[in-house]
Amino acid sequence: MSARTLKLGAVLLGVGGPGQHNTWLSPEIPGNASVDVRWYIARARQAEAAKFDHVFIVDSQFITPDSPNHYLSRLEPLTLLSAIAVHTSHIGLVGTITTSYNEPFNVARRLASLDHISGGRAGWNVVTSGDAGTAGNYSRDEHYDYETRYGRAFEHVQVAQGLWDSYEADAFPRDKERGVFFDRSRQHALHHRSEYFSVVGPLNLERTPQGQPVIFQAGDSEEGRDLGASIADAIFTHAGTLEQARAFRSELRARAAARGRNPEHLLVVPGIFPIIADSDEEARAKEDAILGAKSFARALAELGRPFGWHDFSQYDLDAPFPEVGDVGARSFRTHAEKIKKLARERNLTLRQVVEHQLQEQRSPFVGSPRTVADEIERWFDGGGFDGINISVTVPSEFARFIDQVLPILRERGVVRSEYESTTLRGNLGLPVPENRYTAARRQPPAATACRHHRGRRHR
Amino acid sequence: MSARTLKLGAVLLGVGGPGQHNTWLSPEIPGNASVDVRWYIARARQAEAAKFDHVFIVDSQFITPDSPNHYLSRLEPLTLLSAIAVHTSHIGLVGTITTSYNEPFNVARRLASLDHISGGRAGWNVVTSGDAGTAGNYSRDEHYDYETRYGRAFEHVQVAQGLWDSYEADAFPRDKERGVFFDRSRQHALHHRSEYFSVVGPLNLERTPQGQPVIFQAGDSEEGRDLGASIADAIFTHAGTLEQARAFRSELRARAAARGRNPEHLLVVPGIFPIIADSDEEARAKEDAILGAKSFARALAELGRPFGWHDFSQYDLDAPFPEVGDVGARSFRTHAEKIKKLARERNLTLRQVVEHQLQEQRSPFVGSPRTVADEIERWFDGGGFDGINISVTVPSEFARFIDQVLPILRERGVVRSEYESTTLRGNLGLPVPENRYTAARRQPPAATACRHHRGRRHR
Repeated sequence: MSARTLKLGAVLLGVGGPGQHNTWLSPEIPGNASVDVRWYIARARQAEAAKFDHVFIVDSQFITPDSPNHYLSRLEPLTLLSAIAVHTSHIGLVGTITTSYNEPFNVARRLASLDHISGGRAGWNVVTSGDAGTAGNYSRDEHYDYETRYGRAFEHVQVAQGLWDSYEADAFPRDKERGVFFDRSRQHALHHRSEYFSVVGPLNLERTPQGQPVIFQAGDSEEGRDLGASIADAIFTHAGTLEQARAFRSELRARAAARGRNPEHLLVVPGIFPIIADSDEEARAKEDAILGAKSFARALAELGRPFGWHDFSQYDLDAPFPEVGDVGARSFRTHAEKIKKLARERNLTLRQVVEHQLQEQRSPFVGSPRTVADEIERWFDGGGFDGINISVTVPSEFARFIDQVLPILRERGVVRSEYESTTLRGNLGLPVPENRYTAARRQPPAATACRHHRGRRHR
Repeated sequence: MSARTLKLGAVLLGVGGPGQHNTWLSPEIPGNASVDVRWYIARARQAEAAKFDHVFIVDSQFITPDSPNHYLSRLEPLTLLSAIAVHTSHIGLVGTITTSYNEPFNVARRLASLDHISGGRAGWNVVTSGDAGTAGNYSRDEHYDYETRYGRAFEHVQVAQGLWDSYEADAFPRDKERGVFFDRSRQHALHHRSEYFSVVGPLNLERTPQGQPVIFQAGDSEEGRDLGASIADAIFTHAGTLEQARAFRSELRARAAARGRNPEHLLVVPGIFPIIADSDEEARAKEDAILGAKSFARALAELGRPFGWHDFSQYDLDAPFPEVGDVGARSFRTHAEKIKKLARERNLTLRQVVEHQLQEQRSPFVGSPRTVADEIERWFDGGGFDGINISVTVPSEFARFIDQVLPILRERGVVRSEYESTTLRGNLGLPVPENRYTAARRQPPAATACRHHRGRRHR
C-alpha cells in the first residue's frame, strides 16, 4: 500500500464558483463550450497529462430562462463521457445521474458500458435532483419528497450494484476450439423486490474491468450523509472552512465505520475554486474583481434556488429576511435551512443575506502558487479532505494550477507523479469488490448471509 | 435534387440472419466483440470508407441463458455510438431505444447530445420492446399490452420532437463583445400533457445540427405500420420476397401520404443478409453449410421468442402444431400470428413449422457479386426498398460486399460514390424540419394551427 496521496478531480465547466457565470466571456473558451465535445476532450487530456484521477461532469434536468449560462444547453454526462473515454487512456470519467428520474436497469447498463468502453474508468455521481421543477419533465405533478428521494437513491444504487454482479468473472470462456461461449452457471438473475423497485435481471452486460464502477455521492443533509456513508466510495461536497471540513469528514468516516465499512475506502473530495496569481495580493485583487463583477441581482435570483427557485425580488431588501415557510421543501432543503437559520440567528435583512451569500463564495484557496499549495497541504494533512475536485473553465487558469501549484505538492509527496493503475478504482486506492456469487461459493454460508444483509437499509 | 440512390446501412453485430449464432467462432472476430468498442469503431470506419449512410445498433433489455451469444453481454447503443462518433466523420449513427421503458426527456436529451457530438449524425430506431420479460427489469409485473406500447411510442416520439424544438436556431448569440449569451424569447417550454406523458420542458440542449435526429422505426403490425407512417423517416423491416416488400412499401407510402406527408420522405430499409462467393453455386453451397450448422434444437428454441419465449420442446414434434392460445400476446404478436396462420392453413406439424422457419432464413441475396448486385438493383428499381441494412459480423464478408458488389452498383448509378452531406439527414435526402416556433412566427396563424395538429393522433 502506497502512502496516502491527494486525489485530483477536474469538474469540467462546473458552475457555482465565484464568477463562473461570466467565464463564457473569456476569449479562451468557445461560446458553445458546453455543447462542444472537442472542448471537453481537450480539457480531459489536459487533466490527464497532469495525472488527474478523474474528470467530473455535473448535471441537472431542469432549467428556466434564468439558469446559469452553461446549464441552459449542455451535453448529457454519459453520452459525453463515452466520447471522452475513447480519446483518453488513464483518467477516470465520473458522470452525474439522478436516481429520481431514471430506471436502475438503464443506469446500471450505461455505466457498465462506459466502464467497458473506458477499460475501467467509469464513476457515477449519485444525485436525487434538488430542483423541484424537475418533476414536471418526468410526468409527475410533484417532486418526490425528501425521504422518498433518498430512499429511492439507496435502493437504486443497491439494484445497480446487484445488476453489476449478474455475471461472474469467468462467465464467458469464449473458447473457439471447444466451441464454448458461455457458462450458464455463472449468470445470475437478481430478483430484487423492495419498496421502490423490483428488478429481475440479469443485466445483459458482463462483469466490468472495475467489477463495480466507482460511486460518488453528494448531499450534506442527514439523509445525504447516511446515503454516502452506506454506498459511496467518494463524497463530493463543498469546502467551507477547514474546521467544518474536518468535522464533516470525521463524521462521514464514523458513519461508514459504524456500518462495518473501512473508512479508508470512503474518500471526501470537495469541489474547490482556487484563485492563483503571482502574489497573494494579486490573487486577492483577482478574486475581488471576479466577485465584484457578479451583480447583486444575479445573487438575489440565485438565492432562490435552494427554495425551489423562489422569487426573492418581490420582497423589501431592507426588511428582515422574509418568512417563506415551507417553500422549496422538496428542493435543496439543507441549504435552505442553513440560510434561514443564519438570517434568524443574526437578525439579517434580505440584503444582508444576499451579501453574505456573495462573501460565502470566497475561496479558501486564494494566493500565490505557494500559498495555495500550503493551504491545500494544510487541509489534506489536517483531515479536511482526501482529494479535491477543481472547477475547470478557463484553460490557462487550469494550466496555472497544473504548472505552478502541482509541482510544489509533488515535491512534498502530497500528490503522486504517475498513474498507479489503468482503472479509476485503482488510482483512487479503492479495492475491487468481489462478485457476490463468487464470494458466496467461496465462503461458508453463514458469513455469506451476513454479508448479504449488511447495509440492506441505510438506517 | 439528385437522382434516387440506394441507402446503405450496416447493422453491427446484428443477429437474426442465417448462421449468426455461430459467427463468434470466426477467427476474424474477437470473442468479446459485443463489448469491444475498438471492434465497433473498426467496423464503422470500414463502412464509412465505403460511404455507407449509417451504422445501426439493435438492442433489447431482456435476456435468459438461452439468448443469442452476442446478446448475453453487449454495450448499450447510445453509449457505444457516442464513442464511435468521435472516431468517424460522416457516417450516421442509429441507435435502438425503447419507448416502453425510458422517459422521453432522457431519450430526447441523449439523442440530441449524440447529434451535437457527431455534428449531425444521430438516428433513433424507435422500438417498443417485444420481449414480455422486459417488464420484470423495470419494476412492472406485466409487460404493457400491445395498444399501450404503440400508444406510448407515438406520444413518446412526439414529446421528444417537441423537446428538440425547445430552442430556436438563433437562441444563443453568445456575443462576447455585447455580452449577450442568450435570447430568452427563443426558449420555449413544451407544456405537453396527454395520455401517457406530461412534460413541461424546455430541454436543456440547443437545436442540434440536424434540427431533429432521424427517426427509424420497426414493426410490421397494424399498429407498427401506423406508427411508422406517422412519425418515421425510415422503416427498418425484414425482406421476404420482392412482391411482399413492394406491397409493404406501397402500403407504408400510402399511409404516409394519407397523413399529408411526402412519401419520398419515408424510406424503407430492410435488413438483409447477403451471401457472396465467386460463383452462384459456391454461394448456395455456403448458405447450405451455414443453415446446416444450425441445430434443430436451437431453431426450436428460437421459435419460442415471438410467443414470449414459450418452450416448444415440451410438445410432440410430429403432432400438429400445438394450440398455444394466447401465450406471448404481449410480445412479438404479428410474428406469432403469422406462424400460427401458416401452421393452420397448411396443417403443419411442429417439426414442419421449425423446418419452415429454418428455410425462411434463406437470403434472397445469395450468389456471385454480379448476381447479388443484380438482385439488389431489381428490388431497388422494382420498388422493394429504398435502401438496405446489411448485417455485419465477419469483416472479410463485409469487405466482399464492399469490394465486389458495391462497385457494380456504383457503376450502374444505383449507389452514390461520395457523401453528399456531413449529416445523416443530408445523406438520406431528408429535409431538415423547421423549428415549430420559428415556423409559427413566420406563417399566418391559421396555417400554423393546422400544421401543429397534423398527425396529433396516429389514427
